[in-house]
Amino acid sequence: MKPRTDQNVHAIILAGGSGTRFWPLSRETCPKQMLQIVGEDTLLRQTIKRIISFVPPENIWIVTTEDLAQDLRFHIEALGSFTKGIQFIQEPFGRNTAPAIGLAAIYLNHLSPKSVMIVMPSDHAIPDPEKFLDDVRLAVQGAKGDYLVTFGIKPNRPETGYGYIKVDPSLKMELRGLYKVEGFFEKPDLETAKRYLSEGNYFWNSGIFIWKTSAILSEIAKHLPSLYRTLMEIKSLLFPPDGSNKLDRLNALIDPLRLNRVKDYYSRLESISIDYGIMEQSRNTLMIPATFQWSDLGSWSALDEIIEKDGAGNIFKGNTIDLESQNSIIFSGERLIATIGLKDMVVVDTPDATLVTPKEKAQEVRKIVEKLKQTDREEHLLHKTVERPWGSYTVLEKGNGYKIKRVVLKSRARLSLQLHRKRTEHWVVVAGIAKVTKENETYLVRTNESTYIPMNTKHRLENPEEEPLQVIEVQNGDYLEEDDIERFHDDYGRKDHRPRS
Amino acid sequence: MKPRTDQNVHAIILAGGSGTRFWPLSRETCPKQMLQIVGEDTLLRQTIKRIISFVPPENIWIVTTEDLAQDLRFHIEALGSFTKGIQFIQEPFGRNTAPAIGLAAIYLNHLSPKSVMIVMPSDHAIPDPEKFLDDVRLAVQGAKGDYLVTFGIKPNRPETGYGYIKVDPSLKMELRGLYKVEGFFEKPDLETAKRYLSEGNYFWNSGIFIWKTSAILSEIAKHLPSLYRTLMEIKSLLFPPDGSNKLDRLNALIDPLRLNRVKDYYSRLESISIDYGIMEQSRNTLMIPATFQWSDLGSWSALDEIIEKDGAGNIFKGNTIDLESQNSIIFSGERLIATIGLKDMVVVDTPDATLVTPKEKAQEVRKIVEKLKQTDREEHLLHKTVERPWGSYTVLEKGNGYKIKRVVLKSRARLSLQLHRKRTEHWVVVAGIAKVTKENETYLVRTNESTYIPMNTKHRLENPEEEPLQVIEVQNGDYLEEDDIERFHDDYGRKDHRPRS
Repeated sequence: MKPRTDQNVHAIILAGGSGTRFWPLSRETCPKQMLQIVGEDTLLRQTIKRIISFVPPENIWIVTTEDLAQDLRFHIEALGSFTKGIQFIQEPFGRNTAPAIGLAAIYLNHLSPKSVMIVMPSDHAIPDPEKFLDDVRLAVQGAKGDYLVTFGIKPNRPETGYGYIKVDPSLKMELRGLYKVEGFFEKPDLETAKRYLSEGNYFWNSGIFIWKTSAILSEIAKHLPSLYRTLMEIKSLLFPPDGSNKLDRLNALIDPLRLNRVKDYYSRLESISIDYGIMEQSRNTLMIPATFQWSDLGSWSALDEIIEKDGAGNIFKGNTIDLESQNSIIFSGERLIATIGLKDMVVVDTPDATLVTPKEKAQEVRKIVEKLKQTDREEHLLHKTVERPWGSYTVLEKGNGYKIKRVVLKSRARLSLQLHRKRTEHWVVVAGIAKVTKENETYLVRTNESTYIPMNTKHRLENPEEEPLQVIEVQNGDYLEEDDIERFHDDYGRKDHRPRS
Repeated sequence: MKPRTDQNVHAIILAGGSGTRFWPLSRETCPKQMLQIVGEDTLLRQTIKRIISFVPPENIWIVTTEDLAQDLRFHIEALGSFTKGIQFIQEPFGRNTAPAIGLAAIYLNHLSPKSVMIVMPSDHAIPDPEKFLDDVRLAVQGAKGDYLVTFGIKPNRPETGYGYIKVDPSLKMELRGLYKVEGFFEKPDLETAKRYLSEGNYFWNSGIFIWKTSAILSEIAKHLPSLYRTLMEIKSLLFPPDGSNKLDRLNALIDPLRLNRVKDYYSRLESISIDYGIMEQSRNTLMIPATFQWSDLGSWSALDEIIEKDGAGNIFKGNTIDLESQNSIIFSGERLIATIGLKDMVVVDTPDATLVTPKEKAQEVRKIVEKLKQTDREEHLLHKTVERPWGSYTVLEKGNGYKIKRVVLKSRARLSLQLHRKRTEHWVVVAGIAKVTKENETYLVRTNESTYIPMNTKHRLENPEEEPLQVIEVQNGDYLEEDDIERFHDDYGRKDHRPRS
């Protein structure tokens, strides 16, 4: 392994995505970056693995929303204890990439004015981590010369879904492979895309950027002055000269008054991308033709670029049975998906929702999610199985006055000490041994035994063994939502009443 | 209501269908005739309702397989107590329509040599019962003249999926609307079908027949002599001259030796349809152009003919959300099916399996079912919800060592007094009040209470109230199949260990 870079180099992982493009596999509470769509781990965890040999954990920063931060913290901890060093930066609201990157620049620039940031989306597929790091090393060299550096992807088709970067090969910099950028161009029509492809000096915009924090802040001051002024106000709240700031473990301000002022500033920011707001305006940009394979996984149909297909051009995952389909993508879980004679179709199945669409319409799934949001439904919000730091729960059925969950506790994990005002719980242990606390009593419940938790009773469920514990929980009551919970002690530092238990 | 016909007229409802064409909604244990696909009731119950004002219940005979008979008996009882009079005839094995109709003819001919039978498939859609009965009255007149009478459907398109009947309009019989048949023709190619359509004297073969039992037996003797000989052997076993036969309540022989001989004869019969074996051969056939609307619902795409479509030509049922689909059929239940831009597609969702296919390939679903049968799977066999005479049960989850069911008991219904050798059961009542028998003890379990049934313990679950009872059952054990049951008393006369409880 090559040596890590110097301590001033940081990786900023943008992980605020809202999870609409890969619905129904992605949900608001489980966006695309938390999915294992390609490769052996989730996209976010792969992104961390990709960069961890280049920057130390404490120089990795996950930029995400307040809603997602805690879940992402639990999500990345599965990678190992080294992830404890990884830092978080919370966007109070989603305002696209320019404000998010500006906010991260403030944090890093406060640490060191010499800091360099590698900006990486958390939801791209890059199957060649070694080549990626080689290119990143080169980019860091370029960034130290105060340039804004980006990666361009050599196009292999006249794609109309990406922005393009034009370089002038005669303006090649001294460093091998760094080109002066002549311009950024928005998504073209097919005719134009074909011309770009044939001319040879146009590249796809990868959305991966490397620059000094001082350089990007100076470009923001120049091209987005209003954003710059707001960022400076936020900086004075986050990092006052008297050092009176206090940040929580996810790097948000603890003082609610100051935090609210940050939120207020942020809420008024214009939603604008770094590409449109800075890269297209700046005259100070370099591009490296990427040597690594890349896909931004913009929609279900993008899997074609990155997953190996069978002889008929199909991608099958999970429980499927097929007759003579072609060029189709069939993603299933445990339920059976049977397909006959499909052509260029996408079918995605999850326990509570299924999507069927031609590939060419796959990007319109956003409109389905919009429609769902306008109703009282939950299919855009939650999965039936919800991962928790102690394990997971799956809603098996909701009925009138009852709800049934399968609760799985990891080795030696326990839920918070809690009570419910509006429901009782029957627990039947179907695997392992449960340690149950009920007010002042503590007892074991073994496989094939059951116990009962009345309303208004402090209780805790714990797995005292190495093997996983599985409990079937039958809840009874008129109100069965997750926010009917009062916590008295939690191993994971959770205090709020959000959808977790 | 017009008066019923004379007591010698019987309706024979062919209900042996194996339920492959409408998979995944149909299953082996829930074939098409038990589905409510079109109209307000299941196809079989609609078939009974259609004829019940013309023949009395005791003149209605359901011809089906041994496997399905008991379930169909429970299925039709939902129509009311009059169905107690409806009779069953069991085919020991499926051998297509000629043997099934021959077997029915034996039963009826034994009752009266003058008997007339109206042969009706149980899985066709006929939305005009009044017109149907008018045509049936005419057909019975024709049948009394010793003719084989059938209904022809006026074609409205060059359909290649049906057989055709050719009539010579100059050979019209004296009775209004009865034509002498010139010939039966197998499913044509498109060119031929177009010619049939333009010539005007070709009709679709409806598969509905009316004749005297003596007439059909005489035609069988002539054209299928081997079948005739076997039928006579079976007749001598079923109805020996000394009157020593005893039939059970589903009209099967009680004496196992005799029953086995019937099965043995039947098993050796050639599988042949009445159309091919008799109708195409006989010179003694009349056809009535049907005045009623008709569809044989041969596949999912046939719903187009019989269900009203929206402005874009779509049929939606259940929990669906769509963007801009056209001419598609989307059948869902409680899970969400989201579709975008489909054209001429069929999507059918059930709790454990989903089918996606272009309409033009819908008939190939049979091949999917064949593939499933070759594996250890159950998706072709059972639904997750299984109807029972006392209510229903739904398998919510099967896991390693446990199974969870929601059990719903109708008003004042009860399961059999039973025990299990290999599993325990935890019951949590989530609606209603349960009366539980456990060995010599009987007690009530109310909503939000639970009880426990150990292995090898005689028990019974009963709903003593008017309102439905809902119980969540968590089974524990190494073996959790339905055949681990010993019955001591059953309100529904069930004794065997087949998949019911």
